[in-house]
Amino acid sequence: MNDDQFPDAATGDATSTPLERRRRPGGRSAERVRKSPGGKYLNLVNTLAKSTVLSDDALESVHEASLTILEEIGMDVILPEARERMKAAGADLTPGTDRVRFDRGLIMDMIASVPPAFTMHARNPARNVAIGGNNLVFAQIASAPFVADRDGGRRTGNQEDYRKLVKLAQSYDIVHTTGGYPVEPVDIHASVRHLDCLSDMVKLTDKVFHVYSLGKQRNTDGIEIARIGRGITMEQMEREPSLFTIINTSSPLRLDGPMLQGIIEMSSRNQVVVVTPFTLAGAMAPVTIAGALVQQNAEALCGIAFTQMVRRGAPVMYGGFTSNVDMKTGAPAFGTPEYMKAVVAGGQLARRYNIPYRTSNTNAANTLDAQAAYESAMSLWALTQGGGNFVMHAAGWTEGGLTASFEKFILDVDMLQMVAEYLTPLDVSEDALGLDAVRDVGPGGHYFGTLHTLQRYETAFYSPILSDWRNFETWTEAGRPTTSDHANRIFKQKLNEYERPPLDPAIEEELDAFVAKRKAEGGVPTDF
Amino acid sequence: MNDDQFPDAATGDATSTPLERRRRPGGRSAERVRKSPGGKYLNLVNTLAKSTVLSDDALESVHEASLTILEEIGMDVILPEARERMKAAGADLTPGTDRVRFDRGLIMDMIASVPPAFTMHARNPARNVAIGGNNLVFAQIASAPFVADRDGGRRTGNQEDYRKLVKLAQSYDIVHTTGGYPVEPVDIHASVRHLDCLSDMVKLTDKVFHVYSLGKQRNTDGIEIARIGRGITMEQMEREPSLFTIINTSSPLRLDGPMLQGIIEMSSRNQVVVVTPFTLAGAMAPVTIAGALVQQNAEALCGIAFTQMVRRGAPVMYGGFTSNVDMKTGAPAFGTPEYMKAVVAGGQLARRYNIPYRTSNTNAANTLDAQAAYESAMSLWALTQGGGNFVMHAAGWTEGGLTASFEKFILDVDMLQMVAEYLTPLDVSEDALGLDAVRDVGPGGHYFGTLHTLQRYETAFYSPILSDWRNFETWTEAGRPTTSDHANRIFKQKLNEYERPPLDPAIEEELDAFVAKRKAEGGVPTDF
Repeated sequence: MNDDQFPDAATGDATSTPLERRRRPGGRSAERVRKSPGGKYLNLVNTLAKSTVLSDDALESVHEASLTILEEIGMDVILPEARERMKAAGADLTPGTDRVRFDRGLIMDMIASVPPAFTMHARNPARNVAIGGNNLVFAQIASAPFVADRDGGRRTGNQEDYRKLVKLAQSYDIVHTTGGYPVEPVDIHASVRHLDCLSDMVKLTDKVFHVYSLGKQRNTDGIEIARIGRGITMEQMEREPSLFTIINTSSPLRLDGPMLQGIIEMSSRNQVVVVTPFTLAGAMAPVTIAGALVQQNAEALCGIAFTQMVRRGAPVMYGGFTSNVDMKTGAPAFGTPEYMKAVVAGGQLARRYNIPYRTSNTNAANTLDAQAAYESAMSLWALTQGGGNFVMHAAGWTEGGLTASFEKFILDVDMLQMVAEYLTPLDVSEDALGLDAVRDVGPGGHYFGTLHTLQRYETAFYSPILSDWRNFETWTEAGRPTTSDHANRIFKQKLNEYERPPLDPAIEEELDAFVAKRKAEGGVPTDF
Repeated sequence: MNDDQFPDAATGDATSTPLERRRRPGGRSAERVRKSPGGKYLNLVNTLAKSTVLSDDALESVHEASLTILEEIGMDVILPEARERMKAAGADLTPGTDRVRFDRGLIMDMIASVPPAFTMHARNPARNVAIGGNNLVFAQIASAPFVADRDGGRRTGNQEDYRKLVKLAQSYDIVHTTGGYPVEPVDIHASVRHLDCLSDMVKLTDKVFHVYSLGKQRNTDGIEIARIGRGITMEQMEREPSLFTIINTSSPLRLDGPMLQGIIEMSSRNQVVVVTPFTLAGAMAPVTIAGALVQQNAEALCGIAFTQMVRRGAPVMYGGFTSNVDMKTGAPAFGTPEYMKAVVAGGQLARRYNIPYRTSNTNAANTLDAQAAYESAMSLWALTQGGGNFVMHAAGWTEGGLTASFEKFILDVDMLQMVAEYLTPLDVSEDALGLDAVRDVGPGGHYFGTLHTLQRYETAFYSPILSDWRNFETWTEAGRPTTSDHANRIFKQKLNEYERPPLDPAIEEELDAFVAKRKAEGGVPTDF
């Protein structure tokens, strides 16, 4: 059921369960949901030939070295239940320790059952996203502790800003899914934060969302909220992955308890796991990019193999996040040439295993200056040419992920749309070749007023959100606004225009009841 | 003699003429010249698989349509001597008009003799540049009427700023050649401007430079100055292309007199011609990118064919400059998705004809904001993946070419160096794969102090000029500088550190004498 091709559920059939029919008399809500977005940026396909930075031999060297690590050194697996599952699958445990070693044959056998493509189902089928193959999906920023805009400066995350960012994600088709929490709303108590946040994900957007793997209960609550949001049975939910979680290894070579628990909860329900080692070359991984890639690959394969030990065929992605550090300070650096190479090499590895590839739109800028743009643009270059399928932090990420920026969100949306336009096939029809127009104009003329131009000019070119193409004099009269000024104006305008996507009142009622019940039960234990 | 491979003249043999030996007793000057730069950015090779946006069939459609234009519509050729040369080669003239039509067989026969690769020779052989194949050469901005920095604002071009910009071009290895005049120094009378400017090109840099095709005498003066600068005979100069000129068609479908004269002067002396139509879709070319490409290709092939009518085998490049306009205002737009597609398609066309490909690093920003960075980064993405060989305006271009920006120059140098680093092959030696380092650190450790890290960290990663990777607090304490602030500081620092490259006093004397003589003769006629 996992390797279906998009848009399998866009017909709406997928939601026509008895449960839903009962809840939506006459199907009016369903109609409203289905007719919503028809934007050109919904289903991106990247048919560019993929770049490579590793020769076939070098790719095999990285592959073999990473399997050697898993075989000889192994990983520390900080959850007894996970170690037992691994042992049952054939891994070697060292009694009295967390260490688990994996025969290369075991790893390769496990990853052979990973689906090469699958669909993530949203509560609005038009927002379903196809993962794998040549599909390119952009997810909003996740997990920033801080939020910033020009008006309010940089501040700790809170619910109001959280909601604004989720609304912005809903406002642009190019942001295909939300990520995790775009900013961590620390004004909500940690025991119930996931309930409020995921409830908002259902109400404020109709896109696929993410659940944090921070203990079993959060995963199961997230799965239930996604199920309620879609108005389907758990059986259907298991057939149709509708929720994803990011599993970060604790590099080097360690998988922590909550992450392992997350894999168990999500994979056993056939929900989407994204295994992403955070292998900063020179810090948590060897200082060489090749070495960091070897370690990334070992950790990713281990996590991915574990998803298949939990449930054969469960949907999972290969995540790459290798970058370098600033060797003067140890600070992470992003959007660098080293990052670009790692992204492209990661794509080669993921394609070698035929597993969908997760990347990120990164930068380490502290403000919306040229650095923010060039580091992001270089990231987009690499992940597009390198064959990224699922791009986390695609919109809003700044300061190495510490801050969700409202202005950067708009800048990223504009750049993402440019990437999408670049990927749109060039029209080379006879009409587009324009020989008749050239004949009409002839040498020395111009095309401004010709019929060929007039018929096409309104839609001929991408109309950017931010680029200021006025001449210097007009721009000066306008007060010399920068990209940052435009972005500040536009995010506020977009928030003013925001409308909640339609939601069946019966679903909202069930959702509210579930959240109230879980809050009354005390939410989840917090150990921080 | 033209399709040699780099670095053919780096041995210094090329300069060991009798003339030179006479002028450089003991060869000391030559020694000094030869030992100068050994920078890693001197000889860039781009082995990335080239992207395509045209299928093979579509490529042939563009090709055939452009030949149909030359056959059926023809070009207006505004120079009787050029029309006569074309007629002699087999083209059809319409008596009493400027119109010339070209049989497709004639065009294809002519371009068959274009050298697929050649070397442009600098007065310092270490600065020779290889053109064609997988070589990637960056040239400084050319021809801006305005110049700007943060201190002095935007102002009309002048000699002082001209010289500063040329000094900056000399200061970075990644800027392989100067372009034309980085800014037009209008405080020098037009009749003698080329003499002062090109004399500065010899004295302030040791890189290849450009001569404007604005009347026969400027071309011949430029050739003589380049010859004097290299200290060689005219015979050697003809064997070794040492100077280039940009030939812009007057789109649509017209070649003006000074441009045609430039081809005649330069190609007949075996110097380098770059034929670049300026085909803005929706203005001087059809509003469709495919149509604009058809017209670009027709105009480029016509100019290139003419170089071969002047001299078979003369070095020439295929220039692409197709972009779109802002349909709201008609203003040119750059670094757009449409520009990216045109750049990549242009590469496919140039490779189809096996002719070196000239592109540009463009943007339409009015200031050094995020727009300046993302439009340039998108340009660099396209021209790198699209196989550009020679990149005009690679450093300093802003405001659609109207302004040479000192700060943008530094930003571009940083981005160009990042591209160069990205193109550097990934080290996948056993040592780089780092298995032993991973064994040493093991699960849960870190790599900061390991021997593997300590041995490599100083050179492991590209150290950017501008990126500010300090954490938010430290950056705030430093006054929250932006990329633009850093660029402003650095260009001034670099100018302070500038040193003139060594120049044989005898050459300088001969150069000064030539310039003085030509000034005494009144320079060149000016009709503006």
